[in-house]
Amino acid sequence: MSSILKGIAASSGIAIAKAYRLVEPDLSFEETKVENSGMEVERFQEALSVSRSELEAIRDRAKVDLGEDKAAIFEAHLLVLSDPELTGPIEDKIKLESVNAEAALKETADMFITMFEQMDNEYMKERAADIRDVTKRVLSHLLGVKIINPSMISEEVIIIAEDLTPSDTAQLNRQYVKGFTTNIGGRTSHSAIMARSMEIPAVVGTKEATVEIENGDLVIVDGLNGEVHVNPTEEVIEQYKKEQAGFAEQKAEWAKLVNEETVTSDGQHVELAANIGTPADLEGVRNNGAEGIGLYRTEFLYMGRNELPTEDEQFESYKAVLEGMEGKPVVVRTLDIGGDKELPYLNLPHEMNPFLGFRAIRLCLEETDLFKVQLRALLRASVYGNLKIMFPMISTLTEFRNAKALLLEVKEELVQEGVSVSDDIEIGIMVEIPSTAVMADQFAKEVDFFSIGTNDLIQYTMAADRMNERVSYLYQPYNPAILRLVKMVIDASHKEGKWTGMCGEMAGDEIAIPLLLGLGLDEFSMSATSVLPARSQLAKLSKTEMESLAQEALGLSTNEEVISIVKNAINL
Amino acid sequence: MSSILKGIAASSGIAIAKAYRLVEPDLSFEETKVENSGMEVERFQEALSVSRSELEAIRDRAKVDLGEDKAAIFEAHLLVLSDPELTGPIEDKIKLESVNAEAALKETADMFITMFEQMDNEYMKERAADIRDVTKRVLSHLLGVKIINPSMISEEVIIIAEDLTPSDTAQLNRQYVKGFTTNIGGRTSHSAIMARSMEIPAVVGTKEATVEIENGDLVIVDGLNGEVHVNPTEEVIEQYKKEQAGFAEQKAEWAKLVNEETVTSDGQHVELAANIGTPADLEGVRNNGAEGIGLYRTEFLYMGRNELPTEDEQFESYKAVLEGMEGKPVVVRTLDIGGDKELPYLNLPHEMNPFLGFRAIRLCLEETDLFKVQLRALLRASVYGNLKIMFPMISTLTEFRNAKALLLEVKEELVQEGVSVSDDIEIGIMVEIPSTAVMADQFAKEVDFFSIGTNDLIQYTMAADRMNERVSYLYQPYNPAILRLVKMVIDASHKEGKWTGMCGEMAGDEIAIPLLLGLGLDEFSMSATSVLPARSQLAKLSKTEMESLAQEALGLSTNEEVISIVKNAINL
Repeated sequence: MSSILKGIAASSGIAIAKAYRLVEPDLSFEETKVENSGMEVERFQEALSVSRSELEAIRDRAKVDLGEDKAAIFEAHLLVLSDPELTGPIEDKIKLESVNAEAALKETADMFITMFEQMDNEYMKERAADIRDVTKRVLSHLLGVKIINPSMISEEVIIIAEDLTPSDTAQLNRQYVKGFTTNIGGRTSHSAIMARSMEIPAVVGTKEATVEIENGDLVIVDGLNGEVHVNPTEEVIEQYKKEQAGFAEQKAEWAKLVNEETVTSDGQHVELAANIGTPADLEGVRNNGAEGIGLYRTEFLYMGRNELPTEDEQFESYKAVLEGMEGKPVVVRTLDIGGDKELPYLNLPHEMNPFLGFRAIRLCLEETDLFKVQLRALLRASVYGNLKIMFPMISTLTEFRNAKALLLEVKEELVQEGVSVSDDIEIGIMVEIPSTAVMADQFAKEVDFFSIGTNDLIQYTMAADRMNERVSYLYQPYNPAILRLVKMVIDASHKEGKWTGMCGEMAGDEIAIPLLLGLGLDEFSMSATSVLPARSQLAKLSKTEMESLAQEALGLSTNEEVISIVKNAINL
Repeated sequence: MSSILKGIAASSGIAIAKAYRLVEPDLSFEETKVENSGMEVERFQEALSVSRSELEAIRDRAKVDLGEDKAAIFEAHLLVLSDPELTGPIEDKIKLESVNAEAALKETADMFITMFEQMDNEYMKERAADIRDVTKRVLSHLLGVKIINPSMISEEVIIIAEDLTPSDTAQLNRQYVKGFTTNIGGRTSHSAIMARSMEIPAVVGTKEATVEIENGDLVIVDGLNGEVHVNPTEEVIEQYKKEQAGFAEQKAEWAKLVNEETVTSDGQHVELAANIGTPADLEGVRNNGAEGIGLYRTEFLYMGRNELPTEDEQFESYKAVLEGMEGKPVVVRTLDIGGDKELPYLNLPHEMNPFLGFRAIRLCLEETDLFKVQLRALLRASVYGNLKIMFPMISTLTEFRNAKALLLEVKEELVQEGVSVSDDIEIGIMVEIPSTAVMADQFAKEVDFFSIGTNDLIQYTMAADRMNERVSYLYQPYNPAILRLVKMVIDASHKEGKWTGMCGEMAGDEIAIPLLLGLGLDEFSMSATSVLPARSQLAKLSKTEMESLAQEALGLSTNEEVISIVKNAINL
């Protein structure tokens, strides 16, 4: 039967493919006594052997699709699987206690996991994670339950999940994943940002995708209207195929602008940059003709692993991005962790309101050892391109001064060590906290640039958690309060001869672009896929006219009124 | 051995008394087999009998000290204790299974608790709570552990606790509680606000008061400097007794101002009002000469109970306060629930960031049935005094318009019913969300007044949870960003001929008062105990001079710089 799920349009485009559920299988079982423990040991060995062939296949495919790097984890799993120190006690337990293989496996593995986890050694702690993964796999074969192997996907699919974490997406083969839909999340959740960076359609926040959709169902993800069609009729499929073609045509139109400058209809240039998370995103940046990187989110370097990245690992990533951009500006945001982004190995305390908590620069200014490693890596990489550094979550001038002092201290150390460091690095801040917007005139005297982070700025200005659906009606990018704060920041920077960019979702939004142009924004940084549509839109807008429009918007009283005058002005 | 704990000065003054730990006792035990179950039954009956005498004594004292109302709960406990439906099965279990009385009691009681809790009847659910309390008490006697009976305190004590909830403090006998100290909390936590309303010294956030202080230790709570001295030397005690006397002297000085007007040295009048939680706080308001109620927190009406208060219950409370204030202004804030203030019976969803969540007006505009009951009660009470109504957590004009429309709708209904309602009720809003401060000019055209709620305004403007100690350095009332927002609000109101008050902690703060006077604040509302010190301070300040001071502060760059110029200006 066909049905339609409504959600939030998180990444545009239309995808039509079979569903692939990325959902944890049920591996529960009961401990039972077995009559023939010899046969039970054989059943266990059989499960081991199937797991081994499966892991070998996954490893081989991962090497090809994801690189040696990502494949190494499966090599480690194979080692665990062949370790007699683990398998021996399990077989003994089956024989001595006449318990079923599932129970013998689980109890023995849990013992090892607990033991390794309590060790003070990072390497051993990782072994605990390996044993946990391998146990799951063997258990799935014992129980005859299908385990999910996202890296084994070998046909075009649409991923159905509760939510997608950065490590989930790292394992996905971009060639076969045509779209995805999740139960939770909003336009600014990681899964949504990831979809835009992968340039695949996505609908998030459908609430019940994993309940309503079975493996193999035919699914249409309509990332333009936020709809997911499950087992649609032939007519619906036909209609969507037409829309898909239309969208492809428009993309082809946009593609012609790849090497063009971004110029308004009255000849004003603005800079269109892209937001990235890893060096791998550079390809999308180039394909979409971005004029720079307006936001390099360095926290991905720290995520999905068991220990901090070393200075050299970080250096290599920063260098790769700087070199890849061939002298174009690259704005790197220093570590923004905490809040909704946790690093298990940092043992951060649980907080009642993590979005108002100990995160980003607050953490870095206390954990200066950790912060200095990143600053060293950045400064060492600075000679390979046009580096600009910005600090996230700055709320007071004192914080900015302390962060800058630390940066200069690290620079001095490097110079003493004879390492060459660029003398031409702009140092700026994210403006994402209301106090900083209100104090922009003071900040403008000391920073080299501002980059407005609208996702957080809106959330704090409206006091509404942007991940909480019950208050999502208060996430109002066009509320005159937000526009006024944006104006304060831009005006303050221009008065001191500095520039202001924006790297929140708002920068690539077609209602916001006319207003931001009118307010005088210098740099618009967005998902790479939004760059060409934005360039196309800006070419049709007159900056002078948008200045009047923005002025009018500042005097209105609600978000809705602003949307209405913009739509009217640009004929939407 | 004597020691000193550092904490946050939450309520001024000095208290010297014996420690009373308000800490849950350890009631854990092991299930064992008993040889002589007859003797075990006797042991159980003995514990029942001791519990009974204890409860009778508590009930009798509660009747005298706290009123029939509060004593009723102990009457209910006595009924449970004598119920053969409960005690019978416990005795049977001891005899039949030869288990110890603790285990028989716990298992039987748990069964009844589960049963009652699953019932759909509020009355039966309350019985579950009664059984839980009684079980604890009997268990404590079986185990020989001392249970805490705060209502039995019969000598002067200083309460030592992890934290104090509103229901904890409701049980305290104000006559004997001379001060308190808690492990957690800050200046704006409930325990701190409660201490100021009880006019007793308190130090909160000491981290380890319950670890370091034993029952009976001699404790000095220094609510001026945020220090707690445990078993101090004679010299220290002497010194503090002198300070205590000095503080009493100063209080006597202040007391002379009770019936005075609040006038600055250059003859300008401002209004000094008090914040209250219940009609019982009126006494403190009168004793401290407040000129009105600037904030009546109605959520206390909804807390510490199992169901919503009825319209009549609310009406009686509002009427009592309005009549008690004899025509002086009473600003009532409509229900501000959610965030850190939960109402178990509303079944609000758990939120990741409750401070940025579904609370206050957001909830009331969705749960309009609940909201209308409060509005009806308020409007009915309006004829008994000078009522002003304000809505909390307003972040958009749309919210204010919807709330006001609902109020007018309810008024129309009452008029239709023939109920008399005042035609002279001012309708205002709390300004505690940055967007509202930034949009104050638009709001000022539609509201009758503003009341700035600095506790939340600071927290959102700085994006720092005011309850989270790791970011408490960002709770900066004097940050020029906050002062600028306050100025925007005051200026906007005056331009439209409206007035602005402030009901956050900042309004009673001696560093803030000169700045707020200079910014043009019309009404200062604070803990009743702060009114007289504030009146005394204001009498020494020249409004004209403070205008220049505030102007200078607005151009500074940090919180510290502002503190420094204020201290310099007022010779602190």
